[in-house]
Amino acid sequence: MPLPDAPAHLILTTDILAAVVFAVSGALVASRKGLDIVGFMWLAVLTGVGGGTVRDLLLDVPVFWMVDPIHIVACLITAIVVHFTAHLVESRYKLLLWFDALGLALVTVAGTAKGLDTGTGPMVAVAMGVITGTVGGIVRDLVGNEPSVILRREIYVTASALGAAVYVLLTLLAVPGLAAGIAGILATLAVRCLAITFNWSLPAYRPRPGRSIEEIEKARR
Amino acid sequence: MPLPDAPAHLILTTDILAAVVFAVSGALVASRKGLDIVGFMWLAVLTGVGGGTVRDLLLDVPVFWMVDPIHIVACLITAIVVHFTAHLVESRYKLLLWFDALGLALVTVAGTAKGLDTGTGPMVAVAMGVITGTVGGIVRDLVGNEPSVILRREIYVTASALGAAVYVLLTLLAVPGLAAGIAGILATLAVRCLAITFNWSLPAYRPRPGRSIEEIEKARR
Amino acid sequence: MPLPDAPAHLILTTDILAAVVFAVSGALVASRKGLDIVGFMWLAVLTGVGGGTVRDLLLDVPVFWMVDPIHIVACLITAIVVHFTAHLVESRYKLLLWFDALGLALVTVAGTAKGLDTGTGPMVAVAMGVITGTVGGIVRDLVGNEPSVILRREIYVTASALGAAVYVLLTLLAVPGLAAGIAGILATLAVRCLAITFNWSLPAYRPRPGRSIEEIEKARR
Repeated sequence: MPLPDAPAHLILTTDILAAVVFAVSGALVASRKGLDIVGFMWLAVLTGVGGGTVRDLLLDVPVFWMVDPIHIVACLITAIVVHFTAHLVESRYKLLLWFDALGLALVTVAGTAKGLDTGTGPMVAVAMGVITGTVGGIVRDLVGNEPSVILRREIYVTASALGAAVYVLLTLLAVPGLAAGIAGILATLAVRCLAITFNWSLPAYRPRPGRSIEEIEKARR
Repeated sequence: MPLPDAPAHLILTTDILAAVVFAVSGALVASRKGLDIVGFMWLAVLTGVGGGTVRDLLLDVPVFWMVDPIHIVACLITAIVVHFTAHLVESRYKLLLWFDALGLALVTVAGTAKGLDTGTGPMVAVAMGVITGTVGGIVRDLVGNEPSVILRREIYVTASALGAAVYVLLTLLAVPGLAAGIAGILATLAVRCLAITFNWSLPAYRPRPGRSIEEIEKARR
Repeated sequence: MPLPDAPAHLILTTDILAAVVFAVSGALVASRKGLDIVGFMWLAVLTGVGGGTVRDLLLDVPVFWMVDPIHIVACLITAIVVHFTAHLVESRYKLLLWFDALGLALVTVAGTAKGLDTGTGPMVAVAMGVITGTVGGIVRDLVGNEPSVILRREIYVTASALGAAVYVLLTLLAVPGLAAGIAGILATLAVRCLAITFNWSLPAYRPRPGRSIEEIEKARR
């Protein structure tokens, strides 16, 4: 028996899960900055639903949490829980990295799936997965004034692109949505977690470091 | 006699007023940074219409200033006026805080009202009010490279959420739009102004301050 | 013979060209930061299609690269080429400025043209040209943690506004789209390049420099 609505369920469940784990990462940034409980909530919501919001705006479909605010409620509850438990954790930054990895994997696949579902081509679907997967974390780091994970030269975007490509490829091969989704999530998660654990990184471009504007202006004289 | 179109009028007037006061706060950031007149205009427009733009994109309705550019014109005039009068003010930062408070109150209620008007549920309407109320200020602080008001642990998002909740509650109780709007604006404004005056803040989360990435990497060795 | 479809062709060609030159500027920021090849790709795509994406969201038309991913492919190829050639350049920052200028000119006119094409008024079309013209560079500088070109008090937004106004004016005077587009691009490019070469700037607002939050709080005591 085919499961024609599997992707829809997958997307809903994944969206909620992704919102919660990204919300944890947002709330952990709030704890590192010593914000109040509302700051926790705000960063949790922003990180939790940011990626999916951009995805839905780009796809020109109703924004998911406008239709059903369960994601917002989930983020708010997450923020409160983190506010009262974050001090129990030895390294909040490390925990942040792991939750961010899980969020990245979930949002990447949810973005890619909704893209294919809405009728985009494979290439655009992968781009959507990557862009929506990374937006939540970028906004969190910009607003929270943390060093952007994008600039840390780790295998981050690569992991997202790989998971999205795996999902698209399996879907093109007629693998059922749920299986393709799990494969995509595991692909992103595996690469990202290995990268965190073993400090993997792609070779950096560093023939010459960039100079600051002041150095450039000084050299000109 | 009922006033069926009161919310529509309220939203238009509030949008223009909100654009102008947020434009003042944007122009004051430009003056603190010593930008030129075009920089004033740019920051004024970005701050003035940023929140409402995000609101309209999320609601999937035509962006308000695309329909009628009066808001853009109002922001540009505001920028020019501030450019030639900002030096008369003793503390531009303090003035910025007050105008930001008024902008926050107006945009919060306008965002909440347009949300309800478009048929969102109460919970989503409050979220819309808060998100659209704070986007203008966040973009202004990011682009203007000012310390984000979000990270300053003041009662800011709380004031916005309270005003939005007041507006939604009164509307559900069938209070006319104008009265509910004024009540929501005053609620936000009162809380925010008291918070500025008396340095109110919610208890900070600070069992342990966050460490920088360098400290974390040093501790690992 | 009239060329009724000239604007459409102009917009497509300009969008691809603009994507590539902005992608170069994004990839150059990646090289200054010593990122890996994926970081190059990411910043190239974000800068290359950021402005046009915002334009299409505001106009509520399908986002251009969702319809045809040729722009994304162009940005990715650009990123790879820059990754392997950036070290040949003497001053990457200077090259970045020139490519940014060309990107600004192209995106400004493409944004303005698509605005007029979609039926906006002249004032809104100019605003769209400026906003979409500057978004790519702002996002690049925010994510890449570079000093924002907006805050450097150079003639940047002015050049964009001028080019947009030239395009709108010529179109209102029934000049064919291609000619108006070239005139608008040259207007922006000329002003911006002269500004870079001769360090032109508008008079800065600097009766008093802005104080930091710490200084303000100290003065209060």
